[in-house]
Amino acid sequence: MLRQERVVIDAITPQLECGRFFIKRVIGEKVVVEADVLPDGHDVMQAEVMYKHEAQKQWRTQRMHPLENDRYQADFRVDKQGFYTYKIRGWVDYALNWQHGIEAKVKDGQHVKSELLDGVQYLEYLLGEAGTSDQAYVEELIQYFQEPDLYVPAVEGAVSDRLHQLFLDFPQRRLANTSKELQVYVDRKQAAFSTWYEFFPRSASAEPGKHGTFKDCERLLPRIAEMGFDTLYFPPVHPIGEKNRKGKNNTTEAKEGDSGVPWAIGSRFGGHRELHPELGTEEDFRTLISKANDSGLEIAMDLAFQAAPDHPYISEHPEWFRKRPDGTMQYAENPPKKYQDIVNFYFESEAYEALWQELLEVTLKWVGFGVRIFRVDNPHTKPYYFWNWLIGEVKKKHPDVLFLAEAFSRPRIMQQLAKQGFSQSYTYFTWRVHKQEIIDYMIELTQTDMREYYRPNFWPNTPDINPYHLQGANESMHIIRYGLAATLCGNLGIYGPVFEYMVTEPYPGKEEYLNSEKYEIKHWDWNVKNKLIHLITKLNQIRKDHPALQQTNNIHFCRIENEQLLAFYKWDEERKDELLIVVSLDAHHVQQGYVQLPLEVMGVGEGTPLEFHDLLTQTTYKWGLEWNFIELQPNLPFHIFHIRR
Amino acid sequence: MLRQERVVIDAITPQLECGRFFIKRVIGEKVVVEADVLPDGHDVMQAEVMYKHEAQKQWRTQRMHPLENDRYQADFRVDKQGFYTYKIRGWVDYALNWQHGIEAKVKDGQHVKSELLDGVQYLEYLLGEAGTSDQAYVEELIQYFQEPDLYVPAVEGAVSDRLHQLFLDFPQRRLANTSKELQVYVDRKQAAFSTWYEFFPRSASAEPGKHGTFKDCERLLPRIAEMGFDTLYFPPVHPIGEKNRKGKNNTTEAKEGDSGVPWAIGSRFGGHRELHPELGTEEDFRTLISKANDSGLEIAMDLAFQAAPDHPYISEHPEWFRKRPDGTMQYAENPPKKYQDIVNFYFESEAYEALWQELLEVTLKWVGFGVRIFRVDNPHTKPYYFWNWLIGEVKKKHPDVLFLAEAFSRPRIMQQLAKQGFSQSYTYFTWRVHKQEIIDYMIELTQTDMREYYRPNFWPNTPDINPYHLQGANESMHIIRYGLAATLCGNLGIYGPVFEYMVTEPYPGKEEYLNSEKYEIKHWDWNVKNKLIHLITKLNQIRKDHPALQQTNNIHFCRIENEQLLAFYKWDEERKDELLIVVSLDAHHVQQGYVQLPLEVMGVGEGTPLEFHDLLTQTTYKWGLEWNFIELQPNLPFHIFHIRR
Repeated sequence: MLRQERVVIDAITPQLECGRFFIKRVIGEKVVVEADVLPDGHDVMQAEVMYKHEAQKQWRTQRMHPLENDRYQADFRVDKQGFYTYKIRGWVDYALNWQHGIEAKVKDGQHVKSELLDGVQYLEYLLGEAGTSDQAYVEELIQYFQEPDLYVPAVEGAVSDRLHQLFLDFPQRRLANTSKELQVYVDRKQAAFSTWYEFFPRSASAEPGKHGTFKDCERLLPRIAEMGFDTLYFPPVHPIGEKNRKGKNNTTEAKEGDSGVPWAIGSRFGGHRELHPELGTEEDFRTLISKANDSGLEIAMDLAFQAAPDHPYISEHPEWFRKRPDGTMQYAENPPKKYQDIVNFYFESEAYEALWQELLEVTLKWVGFGVRIFRVDNPHTKPYYFWNWLIGEVKKKHPDVLFLAEAFSRPRIMQQLAKQGFSQSYTYFTWRVHKQEIIDYMIELTQTDMREYYRPNFWPNTPDINPYHLQGANESMHIIRYGLAATLCGNLGIYGPVFEYMVTEPYPGKEEYLNSEKYEIKHWDWNVKNKLIHLITKLNQIRKDHPALQQTNNIHFCRIENEQLLAFYKWDEERKDELLIVVSLDAHHVQQGYVQLPLEVMGVGEGTPLEFHDLLTQTTYKWGLEWNFIELQPNLPFHIFHIRR
Repeated sequence: MLRQERVVIDAITPQLECGRFFIKRVIGEKVVVEADVLPDGHDVMQAEVMYKHEAQKQWRTQRMHPLENDRYQADFRVDKQGFYTYKIRGWVDYALNWQHGIEAKVKDGQHVKSELLDGVQYLEYLLGEAGTSDQAYVEELIQYFQEPDLYVPAVEGAVSDRLHQLFLDFPQRRLANTSKELQVYVDRKQAAFSTWYEFFPRSASAEPGKHGTFKDCERLLPRIAEMGFDTLYFPPVHPIGEKNRKGKNNTTEAKEGDSGVPWAIGSRFGGHRELHPELGTEEDFRTLISKANDSGLEIAMDLAFQAAPDHPYISEHPEWFRKRPDGTMQYAENPPKKYQDIVNFYFESEAYEALWQELLEVTLKWVGFGVRIFRVDNPHTKPYYFWNWLIGEVKKKHPDVLFLAEAFSRPRIMQQLAKQGFSQSYTYFTWRVHKQEIIDYMIELTQTDMREYYRPNFWPNTPDINPYHLQGANESMHIIRYGLAATLCGNLGIYGPVFEYMVTEPYPGKEEYLNSEKYEIKHWDWNVKNKLIHLITKLNQIRKDHPALQQTNNIHFCRIENEQLLAFYKWDEERKDELLIVVSLDAHHVQQGYVQLPLEVMGVGEGTPLEFHDLLTQTTYKWGLEWNFIELQPNLPFHIFHIRR
């Protein structure tokens, strides 16, 4: 094919899998686009980013500026939910090139009569494009260029800033080359900034031994809202299988009265479309959601796409499951382990399209109740393309809906789910305890291309994970883990009240809770207040007050010569909200060190007077030197300094 | 879209610009393909590379093996010139997964009666695929699996290696996912291994002052062939413009008798389709090419797509050039510089298709004379897509033809030309003098993706470049520069006999030759032999004898604690030809140091007896220790050790 364009465009970023996956942003964020853009030869070239929201017809443009080595950059802001498309266009700008040539020759003392004549064509193009206020100016120049006696004003006009700006504003773009199109999906802000609290509704009763209800949960809303959470996440609220029900501490056979595992969904009382009869009615659930919203809380539901052996689907749609040749149901297993209380859907079934459709309709039913966030259980045991389709279908109708992937698995699996559409993802943070591994993990999340598509959600604990470092840990360790999550990550969550009441006793030898709430109803005294709750509340308020903490990627680690002290700088885009955070990782001893202020990153010279206002203690320090003394005690093991210039 | 595949394929390498550009290989090389391939869940997965030559109908496959983190690898060899296509296919292997499940359960002491029944379907598939020698075996297993009394032999068969191999050999590949297709272009071996000698035919006369001819060149063939070169490159051999002809030392006006610049092509005697009348006839040129081939030399022609002001094209095809509005011809310029002896083609012309076609036919004319290599002058001042088309069109009919890009420009420009199709490229080697910059440059060439598409050609000097470090340099410096090029790079070239006769006097203050041959005819005594010629001859012979030097990417730098000593290990693919090379960068003083043998890369433990045979001095050293003493003198400033295990 004979192509006449001279400009080539390579190595566009951001770009995932050659554009097969879209990158992610939230409302108000920027997309910084770069590419290698170059023509042959030395003619002046221009490049621009073109972008538009799916609802817009016209492309907007942003002229790119050069970095080094033929790399160019421009950015655009996304202010609407949904898909934006972006691409790059480059062209040899004959008008600017002509102007540049004249400037160089004039500087060199050459006569440019012929060159002026050559420039008339570019002025004539401007006549057709420029606004009325410039028409007369351009016509005048055309005259000058053609009149030998007017050589001097002609040259003045030819090299003028005004003409330069006209050329920039009205490019002719002859033989422009345009790159392929790439996409960014824009979510609402909660996708990047959310503070989660998880508890089991069946444990919400004021009476010991009694099964909690949705009404009981209403009573707990003020407590959770006051602590500063905005997302209230429930394990599955559907009927629990009676057949092969598990007993306390994960025993294979339940005893009379055992409540079973909420993730073993389905019984004679219904399946994913129904609610557990002991929790309440659909009316009760709607009311709870409404009251939660009034308290500033969103209810997040658990999507656990699997079935107990007595789920209605088993008898109504046997074609959605796999039977073994001997007629028995193929329950979940990872040989040699068996999970007899769970039957997985058979996604290879020929009837898969109806199965996908049903699961979509299940999801949409609860969206219809006002649910806008789903935490998805073990998505890595269901096909990637299924999630891509389901998330896409839901968001077509309900762009507000967010999906959190609970996949604790290999890195590429977790990354694939995020690329395929999950809005947020659990992470390895739960096991990142020491300074260097925390730094390494944050650098992976924020400086590789994971920053474009993987929105981390940091959980110090979950009902499935009682990490070794929290088993028998003191209050300080709990404060440290919550403090880290709250300052390192825009999204975090805790499993309460196990976390804030520091219930840490493990099932021996495992990262599980003893007498885990997964297998039994608990009774809590929700009125107990302690220092951890006080600090969680303060930290959640600080997160609400400081935009620098409402995103994850803008982080810079600062040097501090102490392996127990972790220091980092967080900032918002305009550098109006800047924080210096120092966390002690030592839950038992005092730790001291000198922290190096991130002056270079801040663009500030040493000696510039800066104020560091400790948001916890309300003390203000005036630091002028680059290195400053830090001391942290286990009883308050972090500083969050608000930096004032 | 509802897709049922479970396996996803990401991050395929090698891949350039998402497959927009093909990678390059030569006959006999390998392509190592990698990708992240993963299913959901934990079922057993298989992946394979599929590949075929453009002339083949059937895809061949190569099963991939796991690296770490879900990355898989396989390789295939290319043995024909032309395009190969490759892609990756992955699938959940239900048969292997079934077998793996049975193994795990049996190990765990579980009874697998139902699992055996489940396996019958996989055996039945094998019946339809396996060869006759296995049919009976499979039928027998089917019986066993269904017969409770034959449980023991059934289990034996189920976990057998024989059955495992049958599953590997005859995969069912249900719901397989196949990646996009990528391409590799395979050239003949000379693309990666060639040794160039450049001289000006017009300076080949035995008589001083006389214009050399093609017949005179014949006389020089033995000398050049004996020195071990295989590619003889001539500057343009076409008529030279008389209008605005340049004079000696680049003066703007030629004097009577000045021969002009060979790159200013075109006069009343013809243009790109004709030969300079003083060089000889088309018959003479054919004869020279034929005799060169007999001597083991290929003639490389210079493609300089530009015109002197009196080129026939100017009057015959004014539409291929740009006129200024005052009617004067737009000669080449880079403001404020002017190059009045050159007019560039106007690729933006509406008549560009005819222009492209003519330039293609010019190229094909000389291909018709037996020319198989072209060195292209300043390709970066012509459009990239033009070269992509021209090179593609020529190679469709003549896959043997190679193109060397002479673009000394910015990195992305040089890389773009290579991506667009140039078989070889000049490099920055000409200015890489110090140890670290040499290492850095080699690492860029051999460990970034440049290794996939950029074939470097190292020139210590050219008619345009008399580098500062060679100006007034002694014999040792010349030996060093040739030695570096000859051992670091599969392709190299020198501009002779300026190089081997060490004619170094510069045009003052520039990296140009004084009284440059570009502007005047020279007279050389081609019979002079010197030590440099002797060493060049030896080095070229060593290159021919050692496959390790016939490629560029396989290089490993070895530690040697002396900034003047550069040490590296080169090896061929099977490690049958291994070399340790040490070069002194000091042309004046003795240099000593200890070199660390690359034992780890060689896969050899310390203490393994190794012999190091110096290919220049014929001395053999037996080294058992990891660190060994090296001493190099300016009179022979390198070791090339052939390693014998």
